[in-house]
Amino acid sequence: MAECEQQPFFEHDIPYMEQAYAFALKAYDLGEIPVGALVVSSTGNLLGSGYNLTQAEGCQIAHAEVRAITSACQALDDWRLEGCTLYVTLQPCMMCWGLASLSRIERVVYGAESPLYGFRIDNLSGHPVYTKHTKFVSGGVLKDENETLLKKFFKTVRDL
Amino acid sequence: MAECEQQPFFEHDIPYMEQAYAFALKAYDLGEIPVGALVVSSTGNLLGSGYNLTQAEGCQIAHAEVRAITSACQALDDWRLEGCTLYVTLQPCMMCWGLASLSRIERVVYGAESPLYGFRIDNLSGHPVYTKHTKFVSGGVLKDENETLLKKFFKTVRDL
Repeated sequence: MAECEQQPFFEHDIPYMEQAYAFALKAYDLGEIPVGALVVSSTGNLLGSGYNLTQAEGCQIAHAEVRAITSACQALDDWRLEGCTLYVTLQPCMMCWGLASLSRIERVVYGAESPLYGFRIDNLSGHPVYTKHTKFVSGGVLKDENETLLKKFFKTVRDL
Repeated sequence: MAECEQQPFFEHDIPYMEQAYAFALKAYDLGEIPVGALVVSSTGNLLGSGYNLTQAEGCQIAHAEVRAITSACQALDDWRLEGCTLYVTLQPCMMCWGLASLSRIERVVYGAESPLYGFRIDNLSGHPVYTKHTKFVSGGVLKDENETLLKKFFKTVRDL
């Protein structure tokens, strides 16, 4: 049965996460939960990017990962993102994991943990179809920076 | 811990599923996997509808359920679909379950089972946040009609 493997992240993941962080800052500046995401091809090309716009769009479909994957599909004119890596500053939710796996994303690399909404791959063990293409996951890239930005956002919201 | 309860469907679900089936036929006519979906308010009003356009849009985000939920959010100008029911002709995938629960859909009602991609609620037991609002699920509404349409579609694809 196909399984998704938890891996340590690589040095080359850091500059991509820095770019994803820059997109998270755009969300922050708009008063959205600061999450940014990229889709990168197996040869290292940036195919798509996005940041969270849930409040502005008025729908949960505007998560950063969805916007990054949608823009990568448009760039390739194909829904199959085989061999690609999804970089995202916050651990993805169930919806975004689902989209990544349906889109055949090979690796998911995230920054901060999301204790409440973060989807755990061990819960996919009964659904091998969702780990057929999505084979690797790594967390904790720029963990401190990503956590600090999220905490700063939620502190501002609480202080309003 | 919040749990999602499997229920038998109700008589009043049938006319809504007939409408969802009519949307599935639109997808069929376009050569897409025939799936249709509706979002209905707690008072029985149709808030949104959609049919699968994955091939035409070139992205897995164009599932019928996503399009129905997005249109309901636009109609209400709110991402919160509290008390609403999602009707869909095929058992939802993990992405669509995730979106339904993030959007606070209360009930999911589907037609045909999806043995490969259909997400099972027992796999949500470790993630109570995803069943906090999505409390009920019923399957098998117009099961034969929905299965027949899907089988007809896949037979046509195989014969091409």
